[in-house]
Amino acid sequence: MEFSSKLLENAVREMSQLPGIGKRTALRLVLHLLKQPESQTRQLTAALNSLKEEVKFCRNCHNISDVSLCEICASPKREKELVCVVEDIRDVMAIENTSQYKGLYHVLGGKISPMEGIGPQDLTIASLVDKVRQGEINELIFALSSTMEGDTTNFYIYKQLEGLEVKMSTIARGIAVGDELEYADEVTLGRSILNRIPFEGSLKSS
Amino acid sequence: MEFSSKLLENAVREMSQLPGIGKRTALRLVLHLLKQPESQTRQLTAALNSLKEEVKFCRNCHNISDVSLCEICASPKREKELVCVVEDIRDVMAIENTSQYKGLYHVLGGKISPMEGIGPQDLTIASLVDKVRQGEINELIFALSSTMEGDTTNFYIYKQLEGLEVKMSTIARGIAVGDELEYADEVTLGRSILNRIPFEGSLKSS
Repeated sequence: MEFSSKLLENAVREMSQLPGIGKRTALRLVLHLLKQPESQTRQLTAALNSLKEEVKFCRNCHNISDVSLCEICASPKREKELVCVVEDIRDVMAIENTSQYKGLYHVLGGKISPMEGIGPQDLTIASLVDKVRQGEINELIFALSSTMEGDTTNFYIYKQLEGLEVKMSTIARGIAVGDELEYADEVTLGRSILNRIPFEGSLKSS
Repeated sequence: MEFSSKLLENAVREMSQLPGIGKRTALRLVLHLLKQPESQTRQLTAALNSLKEEVKFCRNCHNISDVSLCEICASPKREKELVCVVEDIRDVMAIENTSQYKGLYHVLGGKISPMEGIGPQDLTIASLVDKVRQGEINELIFALSSTMEGDTTNFYIYKQLEGLEVKMSTIARGIAVGDELEYADEVTLGRSILNRIPFEGSLKSS
């Protein structure tokens, strides 16, 4: 793309660094901002800058938080000895939305991925192992996505925790509620049969 | 969505003001920026701010330009009396890419759209009429999209120019080169038959 303006070209180039935003989309977004009042651009850039400069992470669960101990970790209503291990804040928000979980979280900040150059030291694994070693945690629920990276991360943490006294489980994989069997993939359907739930249990949980 | 951080919530809200960016996408983009070095956020916000503050428009064709008379308008190689009327800079870039057009442009800055509250006075129509009145333009090519808004804008400008001496045409609508007839929509196919080109002409232009 050849631009008639360096200013425009810069803005489009920076915007297209974002994941999933190509040059054309970036141009569309930038031209939209140009048509809007200056306040919109100011508010957007100020919000991004202050997030990047002032963001804090909870000292216990490492979730993004404005205070040093997040609302969930600070709440007296949560079970402190039950901890769910997740990748990032989006997973916390998804699980919180279910209103089914009363424990705490541990946000890893990503998954081990040699392809993307992310190793165990880039994640908050050491802090998790510390917490388990200090006997703060009774049960860990692993809720990472079941991709190769997710499984690698699960296995790495499992190895680190070997010999320590802590119950470990992963969230159940199976057919989504309301889904048709015939459209489910074989791996999920296979697992949902292997890990079938006793009938009383399934009635209780519904 | 409930956020654990006001800073994050603000950034997501501002990001999701952009067209086609929902809350989830906004969150994904913002979390990506959080993982990147601070320089990336700084460069993005600086580029957007300086575009918005310093953007200039060519005094002749109203295209975005860093100088007061854009490269195309200033070029001695372009035919000054042939002007193509387009909606915005993306159309200029698309036509320039063809290397088939040697005239100038007139960028309207949008289309008349009562639904979006865009009237003729929000566009650069008066300046176009002025140029025609002063006899600077021999021929106008209308290259607006053939939507209701595009047709309305074409018709409005046509009415404004009535009685003035200027040739007017619109770009040809037809089946795209390489497209199969059976998949073309009826309107386009119908027009392409009505506006058929003499055989020699079609050979020459290919």
